[in-house]
Formats: sequence, structure tokens, C-alpha cells
Amino acid sequence: MSNYTKIGKVEGARTELHDKLNLTGAEISVNTLDAGSCVPFVHAHKANEEIYFVISGKGKVVVDDEEITLNEGDWIRIAPAGKRQFFASPDSPISFICIQVKAGSLGAYTAEDAL
Amino acid sequence: MSNYTKIGKVEGARTELHDKLNLTGAEISVNTLDAGSCVPFVHAHKANEEIYFVISGKGKVVVDDEEITLNEGDWIRIAPAGKRQFFASPDSPISFICIQVKAGSLGAYTAEDAL
Repeated sequence: MSNYTKIGKVEGARTELHDKLNLTGAEISVNTLDAGSCVPFVHAHKANEEIYFVISGKGKVVVDDEEITLNEGDWIRIAPAGKRQFFASPDSPISFICIQVKAGSLGAYTAEDAL
Repeated sequence: MSNYTKIGKVEGARTELHDKLNLTGAEISVNTLDAGSCVPFVHAHKANEEIYFVISGKGKVVVDDEEITLNEGDWIRIAPAGKRQFFASPDSPISFICIQVKAGSLGAYTAEDAL
């Protein structure tokens, strides 16, 4: 069996990669919000931390009632308990990656885990 | 204590985000290889799977002696045992994200982990 799984560029409002990439330690989604739109709910997590990367565009995220501006290239890590909601800018869409991992699950990494 | 950590766009040959973002379930690095250059070693992992996303440019990765072409927007998941080496194209740099997580560590996710 091959040690890798590859897929090409994904497009659309939301694509979940867990099954497409045979992930076992993360779920990753690729998301695009049209200008002026938002994720239509606030959510938090039980066990998972989320890391977001802005691929393009701009917008904001509200975490626990605090507004945080987002621009291309920005990274944000949100703890499981953080109540979050993402918004595109009124005049720009936003595309971002969401990486979901179990908080506290990483042991050794990089040089300590490498062979 | 705030439930989030944010940083702006990172640049340069390699930036490791674990400590900058207070990550506990992943290590993430942002990497750029100049045209014609490569990561100067082959590596595998003991426990961690890696997921790579090509932000821009083009190149290839060799996994267990198989060459896989990489273009902007591509995703590849490599199992811990996969022996890997990344190369920029002879005529283009490549910038990519590497997400390192412990294989098998994700429990419930998305709807099942959400509140």
C-alpha cells in the first residue's frame, strides 16, 4: 500500500479532506465565504483545537465576543472552548483552511520524531 | 486567558508555528524552496503523519522513490513511514505548509466534537 494520498486544488463553499486524504490525526476543511456572508452559527469544541489559515481575501472572526481582523496569510489558533464565528468582509470574499486536531495530542515532533 | 492566538503572514525559508501559535495538537511549518533547490535530506517519521498544502509555485515530492508533481493548491498526506524529499521546480520556487500530527490521534471531529 502506498504511503501517500494526493488530491488537486479544491474549490467551492466547503470541502472536507479527512476521507479524501485518509487523515487519521486531523480533519482539514477548505472554506470560502462570499463577500458579506458568514458562517451561520457560533461554535466551540469539546476536545479539538482549530488552526485557521487565510488563503486569500479578508474578513474577521469573532472569538468570545472579541472581533479579530483577518487578512491573507494570517494564522489563528483557537482553543476548544473558544466560541467562534467567521465572517467575510462586506466587500471581499475570504478563503481559509481549518485544521482540527485533538488538543494535547502531539507528542514528539520534527527532529525528535524524524527518522 | 484568551482562547486564541493570532499571527500575521510569515515569510522566509522556514517558519515553525508550534510555539508562535501555542499549538498542542500539531506542529505546522511554512516553507519556501527557491527554484532549483530542495530539502537537503530524505526523512520519515516515527509517530506523525504529515499533510502538505502547496500555497504557491510548483515542484515535486519523492515518496519511497516515486516522483509526485506538485502545483498550487495541491494537498498530499504522507504516512509516518513514507520516505520523503521535497524539490522546487528548476524554473519556479515552491511555498508549502507542512502540518504534522500524531497518526491515529483524532477522535470525534466536526459535528461530533462541536458545541
